[in-house]
Amino acid sequence: MRALMISVAFVALSAAASADPLPSWTDGASKDAIISFVETVTDPASGDYVPPDARVAVFDNDGTLWAEQPVYFQFFFALDQLRARAAADPSILKSDVLRAAAKGDLETVMAGGTAALVEVVMASHADITVADFETEVQKWIATAKNPKTGQPLTQMTYQPMLELLGYLRDEDFSTWIVTGGGINFVRAIAGDAYGIPPYQVVGSMVDTEYRVIDGVGQIMQLPDIAFIDDKGGKPVGIARQIGLRPVLAFGNSDGDFEMLEYTTSGKGPSLGLILHHTDAEREFAYDRESHIGKLDRGLDESASKGWIIVDMARDWDVVWSGN
Amino acid sequence: MRALMISVAFVALSAAASADPLPSWTDGASKDAIISFVETVTDPASGDYVPPDARVAVFDNDGTLWAEQPVYFQFFFALDQLRARAAADPSILKSDVLRAAAKGDLETVMAGGTAALVEVVMASHADITVADFETEVQKWIATAKNPKTGQPLTQMTYQPMLELLGYLRDEDFSTWIVTGGGINFVRAIAGDAYGIPPYQVVGSMVDTEYRVIDGVGQIMQLPDIAFIDDKGGKPVGIARQIGLRPVLAFGNSDGDFEMLEYTTSGKGPSLGLILHHTDAEREFAYDRESHIGKLDRGLDESASKGWIIVDMARDWDVVWSGN
Repeated sequence: MRALMISVAFVALSAAASADPLPSWTDGASKDAIISFVETVTDPASGDYVPPDARVAVFDNDGTLWAEQPVYFQFFFALDQLRARAAADPSILKSDVLRAAAKGDLETVMAGGTAALVEVVMASHADITVADFETEVQKWIATAKNPKTGQPLTQMTYQPMLELLGYLRDEDFSTWIVTGGGINFVRAIAGDAYGIPPYQVVGSMVDTEYRVIDGVGQIMQLPDIAFIDDKGGKPVGIARQIGLRPVLAFGNSDGDFEMLEYTTSGKGPSLGLILHHTDAEREFAYDRESHIGKLDRGLDESASKGWIIVDMARDWDVVWSGN
Repeated sequence: MRALMISVAFVALSAAASADPLPSWTDGASKDAIISFVETVTDPASGDYVPPDARVAVFDNDGTLWAEQPVYFQFFFALDQLRARAAADPSILKSDVLRAAAKGDLETVMAGGTAALVEVVMASHADITVADFETEVQKWIATAKNPKTGQPLTQMTYQPMLELLGYLRDEDFSTWIVTGGGINFVRAIAGDAYGIPPYQVVGSMVDTEYRVIDGVGQIMQLPDIAFIDDKGGKPVGIARQIGLRPVLAFGNSDGDFEMLEYTTSGKGPSLGLILHHTDAEREFAYDRESHIGKLDRGLDESASKGWIIVDMARDWDVVWSGN
């Protein structure tokens, strides 16, 4: 898996170094807008020049850098963890939601909405050190497959987005993930999947506590939520961890609205982009009515805000990093 | 001020490029330990080699990178802000502590301990955007002087520590501040004072909230504490924001104990350092009994932990960046 990911990164790198930095993007308005923005803000002769230190680009993860259907991939991890924990100690299944989750009865869990998802995540992510948790995620992702499509999850990152990340880094942008998902879950995959180091992942957090265990200082994950990095939480998370207003933001749902608004309402040049899932044939098609990745307000207000709607079916020649 | 700081940075840079990377450190065991550690972990032929991405070095700020007597410098800023706010609206002085603070009656405030300090900081830091707050700090620091010594605060950073930061960066370490002080206060000064960007400052935080003001997305500081980055909070803050266990930690008080312990109890090579304020003539002398920067447990346990006690009077040829 590591070898595969390195080869994916190599393809992205080679692409960025060639004449066309975004070969998996079809020629058209979206690709032109991205390249034009990057060329302008990196041109010292431009009135819109942005120095390298301020070239902060932020990306949502689920539905923006990799797929998010039929449900966020972290939830599949949580289910597998919950099952393994319940096999060792059935008494942890304290509610109907948790008992349904452990049986794989997704319909009952989904009917419980966000509260039920959070309950499953808490029961499966708590009372473990961050170091052990990240090891578990890495072991799991190496073989995990999407239950709907059968694709390995590591191959469900988007090739055009890997190219964009590489292109921006070649142009001295820093590329950050700002995810509603759990910060330690995404950190565990972000190096191999996207070439992004742990400190450039901003995300939702459970409470943690410092403990010395067998003489070694460890960070324990506790069963309470400390921070939800979604909607208005995204600019807050950016301000806490980055401390600079981004100049480029890329999302796909209304959970990213405030992040795009924060990015594009500052002084100076900026670019906001929304990935519209329009491709039922190669990926999934969903927007205003979806239970995951709902995009409604973003579609209504993108024109007035000057944000680019990236139409997956139209704008991407290739979808998946793994084919 | 900016020109001065740039010239200071230039001196540090030149020093690091010369034969002696730490010219303001006296020859001896402390300097030898630092250079030996850096040379070992950056040597690809060494069994203790650490790749650049993992060369994370963390520094306390108050009492480690700049002075902290007679009280944390952020507190002087808070007093000045409180006075300015009270002049505009005296009704904000709702308690004896706040009324004493606004009159400059430090004794009364100090007698209230940490709770009183926090009360003053909250009353002076809330209901302002992060952007405006950082502008206020930068305006203030440009002229602020230490009430006890009369030195400009910008000249009270430690020259040997500026040299160490530059040396580590030259050797591909990332240098992070992990401060009990307010994250946005320290971010506002860290670029000019230390060459450290906002995202490499971890610190205490007030609650913040995203708001759109006159069409611009802003982060508002609220009057509640969200996170105290001190003692066990330091490893937690490091795990949240950096996501890697550091290999070098430098502090000066028992508030840094857990940060050093977390750093030096992992697998692989690491270095823990404590600055001991032993120099009443050039700086200040304090440790076990001090109300600010108390160092007691650190002195007792440094030998068993293998931490280096840096003795300011003995180990530093020069103290201040400004002379």
